Amino acid sequence: MQLGMIGLGRMGASMVQRLMSAGHDCVVFDTDPAAVAALERDGATGASDLADLCAKLVPPRAVWIMVPAAVVERVVDQLAVHLEAGDVVVDGGNSYYKDDIRHAKRLAPDGIRFLDCGTSGGVWGRERGYCLMIGGDDEAVARLEPIFAALAPGAGELPRTRGRTGAHDPAELGYLHCGPSGAGHFVKMVHNGIEYGLMAAYAEGFNLLRNAGIGSHEHAVDAETAPLADPEGYQYEIDVARVAEVWRRGSVIASWLLDLTANALHQDAELSAYSGRVSDSGEGRWTSIAAIETGTPLPVLTAALFERFTSRGEAAFADQLLSAMRHQFGGHDEKTLP
Amino acid sequence: MQLGMIGLGRMGASMVQRLMSAGHDCVVFDTDPAAVAALERDGATGASDLADLCAKLVPPRAVWIMVPAAVVERVVDQLAVHLEAGDVVVDGGNSYYKDDIRHAKRLAPDGIRFLDCGTSGGVWGRERGYCLMIGGDDEAVARLEPIFAALAPGAGELPRTRGRTGAHDPAELGYLHCGPSGAGHFVKMVHNGIEYGLMAAYAEGFNLLRNAGIGSHEHAVDAETAPLADPEGYQYEIDVARVAEVWRRGSVIASWLLDLTANALHQDAELSAYSGRVSDSGEGRWTSIAAIETGTPLPVLTAALFERFTSRGEAAFADQLLSAMRHQFGGHDEKTLP
Amino acid sequence: MQLGMIGLGRMGASMVQRLMSAGHDCVVFDTDPAAVAALERDGATGASDLADLCAKLVPPRAVWIMVPAAVVERVVDQLAVHLEAGDVVVDGGNSYYKDDIRHAKRLAPDGIRFLDCGTSGGVWGRERGYCLMIGGDDEAVARLEPIFAALAPGAGELPRTRGRTGAHDPAELGYLHCGPSGAGHFVKMVHNGIEYGLMAAYAEGFNLLRNAGIGSHEHAVDAETAPLADPEGYQYEIDVARVAEVWRRGSVIASWLLDLTANALHQDAELSAYSGRVSDSGEGRWTSIAAIETGTPLPVLTAALFERFTSRGEAAFADQLLSAMRHQFGGHDEKTLP
Amino acid sequence: MQLGMIGLGRMGASMVQRLMSAGHDCVVFDTDPAAVAALERDGATGASDLADLCAKLVPPRAVWIMVPAAVVERVVDQLAVHLEAGDVVVDGGNSYYKDDIRHAKRLAPDGIRFLDCGTSGGVWGRERGYCLMIGGDDEAVARLEPIFAALAPGAGELPRTRGRTGAHDPAELGYLHCGPSGAGHFVKMVHNGIEYGLMAAYAEGFNLLRNAGIGSHEHAVDAETAPLADPEGYQYEIDVARVAEVWRRGSVIASWLLDLTANALHQDAELSAYSGRVSDSGEGRWTSIAAIETGTPLPVLTAALFERFTSRGEAAFADQLLSAMRHQFGGHDEKTLP
Repeated sequence: MQLGMIGLGRMGASMVQRLMSAGHDCVVFDTDPAAVAALERDGATGASDLADLCAKLVPPRAVWIMVPAAVVERVVDQLAVHLEAGDVVVDGGNSYYKDDIRHAKRLAPDGIRFLDCGTSGGVWGRERGYCLMIGGDDEAVARLEPIFAALAPGAGELPRTRGRTGAHDPAELGYLHCGPSGAGHFVKMVHNGIEYGLMAAYAEGFNLLRNAGIGSHEHAVDAETAPLADPEGYQYEIDVARVAEVWRRGSVIASWLLDLTANALHQDAELSAYSGRVSDSGEGRWTSIAAIETGTPLPVLTAALFERFTSRGEAAFADQLLSAMRHQFGGHDEKTLP
Repeated sequence: MQLGMIGLGRMGASMVQRLMSAGHDCVVFDTDPAAVAALERDGATGASDLADLCAKLVPPRAVWIMVPAAVVERVVDQLAVHLEAGDVVVDGGNSYYKDDIRHAKRLAPDGIRFLDCGTSGGVWGRERGYCLMIGGDDEAVARLEPIFAALAPGAGELPRTRGRTGAHDPAELGYLHCGPSGAGHFVKMVHNGIEYGLMAAYAEGFNLLRNAGIGSHEHAVDAETAPLADPEGYQYEIDVARVAEVWRRGSVIASWLLDLTANALHQDAELSAYSGRVSDSGEGRWTSIAAIETGTPLPVLTAALFERFTSRGEAAFADQLLSAMRHQFGGHDEKTLP
Repeated sequence: MQLGMIGLGRMGASMVQRLMSAGHDCVVFDTDPAAVAALERDGATGASDLADLCAKLVPPRAVWIMVPAAVVERVVDQLAVHLEAGDVVVDGGNSYYKDDIRHAKRLAPDGIRFLDCGTSGGVWGRERGYCLMIGGDDEAVARLEPIFAALAPGAGELPRTRGRTGAHDPAELGYLHCGPSGAGHFVKMVHNGIEYGLMAAYAEGFNLLRNAGIGSHEHAVDAETAPLADPEGYQYEIDVARVAEVWRRGSVIASWLLDLTANALHQDAELSAYSGRVSDSGEGRWTSIAAIETGTPLPVLTAALFERFTSRGEAAFADQLLSAMRHQFGGHDEKTLP
Repeated sequence: MQLGMIGLGRMGASMVQRLMSAGHDCVVFDTDPAAVAALERDGATGASDLADLCAKLVPPRAVWIMVPAAVVERVVDQLAVHLEAGDVVVDGGNSYYKDDIRHAKRLAPDGIRFLDCGTSGGVWGRERGYCLMIGGDDEAVARLEPIFAALAPGAGELPRTRGRTGAHDPAELGYLHCGPSGAGHFVKMVHNGIEYGLMAAYAEGFNLLRNAGIGSHEHAVDAETAPLADPEGYQYEIDVARVAEVWRRGSVIASWLLDLTANALHQDAELSAYSGRVSDSGEGRWTSIAAIETGTPLPVLTAALFERFTSRGEAAFADQLLSAMRHQFGGHDEKTLP
């Protein structure tokens, strides 16, 4: 079927290619004409602006938006004027699910359906397929099923979940209609919250492995430095790249994130290309906020979120105040860097 | 080659079967004669006690111990009297790596080598193979390589880590000699610490999904109850079993633990067979202690550990004290259960 | 001066009494006529409804609202119709600061000023005075200064902060104009977030002291139970009530919350009157949300918040899922209660 | 009575002065002769080495050790050769309580009693008195009671705990015999664990107040940056020094640590003298380890401990790995510093 794609960044462009490989027609637009031109070379129909894109789509239209969360609102507003009753808009980005509810309500009176679709898979999705979490109107979701099915990975070679038999549930093919408006991004939000937690679990563990030899290093002896409890117990030089490798096979903690970790550590076990300022792009925050608003304990995922803030220097004043208090009550001076 | 196995519980028995399938000879012992008899039926040589087991092994012997951490010391002591120079003992259980160092030092003067081997894979290991993390003497590790190779999963069908070419590194086959005595259990310890974190990440996320409909429930309005911030935003009834299923395909958080979660939730999305008292078996604790002793921040993994303690009621007095303080300063009475 | 007080619960009634002791006239209303009558006996002017209360106040009026956060909006709406330009409304409860901004904007066109005032002190405030954190219009705050000064504790006997000399800053008297609309409740919100953290710090510490004798108790030895590392090291029976007492004098952790803890533990060191279901009333949640929205790491305060949720059973499904995963990969059965 | 003091640093020297003010005789030693000479000028008897110190004390001797935890063992060893049956040694520093048990056992056969005394109060102790938590032999503790009473603050002006009447319990005077050997340092250890939690609670809260104006700053709009949820809600410029001041009076979070915070912030609200590398000196670590060893949840105090590690750069590799994973799955490049 025919789909309009707005936003041809890393994700949007790859999705168009996957859709075209599956035989779908794509009309594409991006504020960067080069991105449009690149996909035109691969067979897509380029559009010069939103009006042009809508004009090139046969009603009832299906338009997929793949832009940063902060600009979705503006795009929806600009797009809406070119749409008509029966059209469907999908926000496939990382938007806040409460915004979806708002957009859907706003467009409903004009007969335009707004779907939200959480899309996981990153830069590997073109090849592996994307995991899709969809929210919104039943009929609109049903109409776009060919698109969802083409983007999703399909059943693949994974062993089937115990007890599942017969025809595949769409969830087994990699796409799921999670509920009414916002439900898709809600599930994607929690997905990303979990992702932060998983990533932090590996990161903390590998950091500890790196410190397994700390007992053989010099250690200050003064009242400002905790004595190293047991130097003899920390004499290992662990090859973290090989540890990541061995854990990929047969261990309880095998995962795709671990596969990626093995890639990164094999390339450079020192990770010297990275400074350690870790971004967060919204969903982790929203997950923790949803937990707080619903009274759900989320200590692990939230600790992972805060660690990202701290990695960017955001604990600085708190840490200075700790040093100031120590100086106040104990006359402790801060240890300076050697 | 020939291996003696002491401890024929869930893990030990399965490992013997995997070894025998690969053509190795196993002499087996357990305090439960039925466990010995069962493996005899499958082709193992049964032993009536440790002396008998050692007598049935041709020197230089290889003996694998697979018993709870709390009884390893006793078994090693009783076993040692029947061993001689050149023999190798492997502790394949979940022992504390500092105990390995101690055992290895104790046996060294008699020419007996003590290896430590962290073994991951659980009840699935017989079929999938076990991920092995090994510590100890180079020569002894080399001698037992056929055993390790047979227990490990092998390269399997996993895509190879980017940049790895040529013959497989043993880590790619699922076993790794991590370093001197204790290094295997050190790496396994951290593995389990990570496992706690990963499990908690999924558990918290699914718990939040379960609360996505809380806005449609009754909510008390009084000074003791935080107002639900946005009831309209929490109106979803999420099918958690299908969410686990869809996340298995193409998502960033796909993992073996998620596969297992999908199994459990498909069987019963209410998990009513479980009361939620979560055990911990040592390695998670040791991981956090190692982090503290080395000055390594481990907030996420340690939060996961503490949540297990709390699940068993261990925060009760702390919580009572919080209520008591609230009563003291604010005259707040505890809310009673409805 | 004259003040109208709406809401005569624990806080409102005590504040009226403190104000009257300082010579101020109070017109009071509550939906419970008995609460009005009680204060009338002490010299307040009772009102039968909001209209009556406003009629009994001489313009420009000052009205203080002291009701649960969840009903402030309704009260403000009902009250506003009886007010006129020049009147001032103070929300002295535990409202969300973003609601203050909204209320203030709504009332401004009618010339009615809306102040927000965070009020700390609990049931002890009548005697000790209340700590007041105020937000809103400068001129309105200035006009109500006699009220704030009477409610606040004054300079008291505390040693003055090093470097402060001359006339007392209002902050030294216990009230502070923190900024424009919402600033008072913002500061109070953070105050309560800190309060959660402080309370949790004491609660965790005393819980640990209670477990100092755990080494002398029975301990299971099986693969599901972490071995107690060092029973000899945990043989103390600590008298927690006396520990609270000694810490009140000269220690770095002396505080008013510790004084209250000493009260509670001296009365009953088992705290058997409390079940340990700990309420939270909003500000702790908003503090963590503000941290997340601003990208500020707040791991300690947020862990304290989540512990309250968990104390009320909200981690149950997460814990069940952990047990289910353990069963899936390791065949572990949950330990049942003895 | 007569007391020998070994270690005349910040704490030791002040304690000698407080003891002499109360009429006790002190024989003092330090490896720095200038520290000895200074106290001689104030009336103490100087000693040139441990032998000299012991010679100048009349048996049965009382010797107090006030040195960094890492050197206590050496001092005890060197001191013991000069002592005899009936003598008492007190370790008043921040030692690990398990070391106390060891020292006490070692000295017992010679009739030498070893007491452990946790000492809180910091540089203010000389004037305010020290809070003392004592462990060890009953008879030895009783004999040194005049020393403990002189060091402790006494009852002071604090309101008495509700229900306490009649003669003061020693705990009300600021010293407490907590139990057998190690109990004093155990209680002191938990005290410091709580201290870390309290400090972190304030530090996080003030850091959040500092960010209350973040909505008026520039904010990047791209896929790597979480959109600031509500800029209008974060427009405050909070005067943190005055907030600390107002919270000292009548608020639930008033404490001595807050008094010190007010000092520090009034002096320089930017805290520019501090870089934010926060030391930890052992007890916080031991508290968390004790919690883990006993299965006691301690999430808040442990998060506070880990934040100190992180403040010293110890999360760097973990953070780099997070960035590396993000790059692997999403092609995300790290944001560079502006």
